[in-house]
Amino acid sequence: MDRVGRVTQRRPVTRVDVAGSVTRPDTLAVEEPLEIRVDGTAVSVTMRTPGNDLDLALGFLVTEAIVANPSDVAGAVNCADNVVDVSLRTPLPDLSPTRNFFTSSSCGMCGKASIDAVRTTSPYDVSTDPLVVTRPVLTTLPGKLRDAQRVFDRTGGLHAAGLFDARGELLCLREDVGRHNAVDKVVGWAVQDSRLPLAGTVLQVSGRASFELVQKAVMAGIPMLAAVSAPSSLAVELADELGLTLVGFLRGESFNVYTGGQRLAGH
Amino acid sequence: MDRVGRVTQRRPVTRVDVAGSVTRPDTLAVEEPLEIRVDGTAVSVTMRTPGNDLDLALGFLVTEAIVANPSDVAGAVNCADNVVDVSLRTPLPDLSPTRNFFTSSSCGMCGKASIDAVRTTSPYDVSTDPLVVTRPVLTTLPGKLRDAQRVFDRTGGLHAAGLFDARGELLCLREDVGRHNAVDKVVGWAVQDSRLPLAGTVLQVSGRASFELVQKAVMAGIPMLAAVSAPSSLAVELADELGLTLVGFLRGESFNVYTGGQRLAGH
Repeated sequence: MDRVGRVTQRRPVTRVDVAGSVTRPDTLAVEEPLEIRVDGTAVSVTMRTPGNDLDLALGFLVTEAIVANPSDVAGAVNCADNVVDVSLRTPLPDLSPTRNFFTSSSCGMCGKASIDAVRTTSPYDVSTDPLVVTRPVLTTLPGKLRDAQRVFDRTGGLHAAGLFDARGELLCLREDVGRHNAVDKVVGWAVQDSRLPLAGTVLQVSGRASFELVQKAVMAGIPMLAAVSAPSSLAVELADELGLTLVGFLRGESFNVYTGGQRLAGH
Repeated sequence: MDRVGRVTQRRPVTRVDVAGSVTRPDTLAVEEPLEIRVDGTAVSVTMRTPGNDLDLALGFLVTEAIVANPSDVAGAVNCADNVVDVSLRTPLPDLSPTRNFFTSSSCGMCGKASIDAVRTTSPYDVSTDPLVVTRPVLTTLPGKLRDAQRVFDRTGGLHAAGLFDARGELLCLREDVGRHNAVDKVVGWAVQDSRLPLAGTVLQVSGRASFELVQKAVMAGIPMLAAVSAPSSLAVELADELGLTLVGFLRGESFNVYTGGQRLAGH
């Protein structure tokens, strides 16, 4: 059972405008470090919104290919404040310093080598996923994501990732100060629930679509990623190579399809 | 001389709305990996917008405290495509795997240990900086930042960081797909121009204010950080501890002052 963290904090703030200034309590999104351990060995530290820490740790280990197979996970516990320890059924692969660098950088991994790495290490091929989503369903996802966010409107500081099925039903919502953490939390929820690969689903994110998010989606077997804002060039290239459907600028009744348009119906 | 990179790329995209769909070329923000080496040894890989690579490498090394003193830098060259090698006058400090993890994670460093690390390793004390900025000057900064961005409006995908003096004059603008990279590029520009510490300046960023950005500002001796969106709780705590003025939700004529209000005049 995942611990529910303290996601907001009250603190005095001075609001200044043309009329003058007033000091009053304001709500901030809490950001705290989480140390992720595997069988007692620290493998990464990430700044995150507390809560769903087991999801975050498991999702990170799977989407960064530190745990090769989700079924290798024997369990996960909050062994101390801001520390999660994940136990495996198999020994942890060797993490060289170079490897460590790459897996914990803000991009996840790097360039050509990592594009190859995703293709070879992801246990799932999303290119053959027969998912089809209609335009009327797709355009409801950002609104459903926002409606389901409990914290966003109070702090303005949290990113969200939501997993939906082809009919637009929300399967899982997670929030975080970091976009990649929100996605890792969704994937970690699926790991705990033995739902990987996440075939037939759409991952909707509140911000941009980076290389890293495309990579994480494919590592979890998700065939479609939809973002409210722009994708980067490398996100589009990776999505194209791996057969992921990538949608951007999904706002109101319109959106851009960058790759995998065969999964969009009704246009 | 820093190489100017290819910051956008044209690619066909299918635009879908209620009227149907049309496929046409669209502009994407380019995202590519940059390997940062110190005297030939790879120390980090980051996904970034190409261009100002020397700035990014130098800023990263200084704000992450890998290079303890900016005057230790002897030079920096683009030694290959997407690779920068920085040469030092002193040997590179020992980078243990644990340390590597921390410096290359998306948060920069982690929690309590890194709050201490910033205070002890930053060569600069920003708490005594006598900078004062008036409300009329401060409220012009986001607009000046946007006006100076050449790429943002074409791709919608780039973050910006701008360094301003107390009168609101723009000293340096840098953009990147990553917020922390945009800030590192600004700091690296100052390293190359022997301007550190950046006393008496304001760093304006286009998005949120995270712990990481507060840390990077203090490592460069910048006494004020202003963000268009929300700060996190840990960003406010660190700013408070180190004496940085932290402004958030700077939009139109109003803003929030979280810490260091003595540097704001005219309200």
